[in-house]
Amino acid sequence: MKAVWLDPETRLLKIREWEDPVLEADGLIVQVKATALNRADLMQKRGLYPPPKGASPILGLEMAGEVVQVGGSVKDWKPGDRVFALLPGGGYAEKVSIPAGMAMPIPDGWSYEQAAAVPEVFLTAYLNLFMLGGLREGSTVLIHAGASGVGSAAIQLVREAGAVSIVTAGSPEKLEACLRLGAHKAINYKEGPFAPQVKEATGGLGVDLILDLIGASYFEQNLDCLAVNGRLVLIGLMGGSHIQNLDLNRLLMRRIQLIGSTLRSRPVTEKIELTRQFNEFASRRFAEGRMQPVIDSVWELEQVNEAHERMERNENIGKIVLRTPW
Amino acid sequence: MKAVWLDPETRLLKIREWEDPVLEADGLIVQVKATALNRADLMQKRGLYPPPKGASPILGLEMAGEVVQVGGSVKDWKPGDRVFALLPGGGYAEKVSIPAGMAMPIPDGWSYEQAAAVPEVFLTAYLNLFMLGGLREGSTVLIHAGASGVGSAAIQLVREAGAVSIVTAGSPEKLEACLRLGAHKAINYKEGPFAPQVKEATGGLGVDLILDLIGASYFEQNLDCLAVNGRLVLIGLMGGSHIQNLDLNRLLMRRIQLIGSTLRSRPVTEKIELTRQFNEFASRRFAEGRMQPVIDSVWELEQVNEAHERMERNENIGKIVLRTPW
Repeated sequence: MKAVWLDPETRLLKIREWEDPVLEADGLIVQVKATALNRADLMQKRGLYPPPKGASPILGLEMAGEVVQVGGSVKDWKPGDRVFALLPGGGYAEKVSIPAGMAMPIPDGWSYEQAAAVPEVFLTAYLNLFMLGGLREGSTVLIHAGASGVGSAAIQLVREAGAVSIVTAGSPEKLEACLRLGAHKAINYKEGPFAPQVKEATGGLGVDLILDLIGASYFEQNLDCLAVNGRLVLIGLMGGSHIQNLDLNRLLMRRIQLIGSTLRSRPVTEKIELTRQFNEFASRRFAEGRMQPVIDSVWELEQVNEAHERMERNENIGKIVLRTPW
Repeated sequence: MKAVWLDPETRLLKIREWEDPVLEADGLIVQVKATALNRADLMQKRGLYPPPKGASPILGLEMAGEVVQVGGSVKDWKPGDRVFALLPGGGYAEKVSIPAGMAMPIPDGWSYEQAAAVPEVFLTAYLNLFMLGGLREGSTVLIHAGASGVGSAAIQLVREAGAVSIVTAGSPEKLEACLRLGAHKAINYKEGPFAPQVKEATGGLGVDLILDLIGASYFEQNLDCLAVNGRLVLIGLMGGSHIQNLDLNRLLMRRIQLIGSTLRSRPVTEKIELTRQFNEFASRRFAEGRMQPVIDSVWELEQVNEAHERMERNENIGKIVLRTPW
């Protein structure tokens, strides 16, 4: 098959021949019709985010495509089915081998490009809001970087759960985009500290849950605006990782939980269960148009270097999608 | 009724007249036959642990006794029933008013003194192991202060869940007591750092859960010996609360959860649900003698000051129980 490969001399991505993936008894071979970029791809290219043990060294953490081969013990899928899935790697390729339990059916009327933009951000948001964050109807949630891919998925999931989101973002356009997706309140973090505004918006109680990819630079304020029984789910450290002072009594007296979370390194059994629960929650809502991925742009696979440059320059709002030629 | 009262001049506890508690429609009035001491009583006596809003100012966080009055909407209990329960306060008294959902039936053949020694330590251990700690069959659990009241309850609950406990304690007698209760390994923390021994005992993986009432002085070692997906449940801060350095990346990369937990301040609806779940798990095991509270000594209520002195001198191993004269 063909796949995208990093030329070690030019540091550019190129399409070249690669070994075909191997079909497992409980798996599928999917012909990839579209894949999408993640920040992890940029890090992996620079050697900073090696793929987990056993995963393909090819870039690409999600894809949408057509089933072309079905393992002997698989009952739910047949060749020709349109599926999309999270991947531990390998999406920038002609074909991928996935466990059947990782596949979700593409909603009727959706393009492969739309479907490829869903898995990483929606499954990350779902895992951290519902399964780790304990999100329920009526919860209040603070979502940092609300206009990011994960942020825009999280705003929609919170809205659909009957909960209330407060978001932070850094420009009027981004705040507006968050409000359109259903955020209850949007705070420009460049105009002052967010914690007092979050407290005011929650009648002094604070929020039940914070979804945070910033880390150290927001840590004090996050603790300040977390309610009793509140959970701070850390999914990124864009603002550093080093905390100089932590009073454990603050956690104890207000029964606060700090939860470190990553998706990629989780065992496949957990990812399958996550996919199952997410699909149950999302499939009807996708089909009815109640939820959808925010797409920045779609590129041909041979334009992969230009697509990466766009993300490297932080120009995208929403997902950058790659369409394959096969 | 009679109740124990702190004489502000002598700082001694005395029995005196007190207002009768008020029966609620969904509640019971219970004549207290036995109550038990907790470290919180000593703190409350010194003004350091005020009772939560709405709770009785009388000391006593647990009791066993006989139902004497039943609220109009209560169906499951009748006068004469023998019950034991967690309390937000008020146990050092002739009578208490409790929500019916907080009452558990005393196992056949058990004395009131035995039953009064159960609620605080067993419900604390159950809450933090199962409901917050995610304890499952096969889990590995590190229990600090294994010979304490909560520790000895936790060792039994872990054993009954089909999980494995490693404990720390400070004397050969305490280590031996923990092993008799079912601990898999007991570490004398006075003989060196515990983390290397915990790692070795878990084949380098670390433990899935730590139940910790020490806090700051154990924090680094706790993080060192926590497995991927591990949870550190903080229920006390006997070793201080101030952490000078925390690298959030350690939480993120290993998907670690830090959970601050207290029982007394939780809303009554949560305590009722906790009681229900605990009773379901424990009642048969208590009746069959598989689990039991560790009792240090039983005192008459009029000896309450001597009983407190025993706890203040840290002489007790297990619960100190007070028997009432009514």
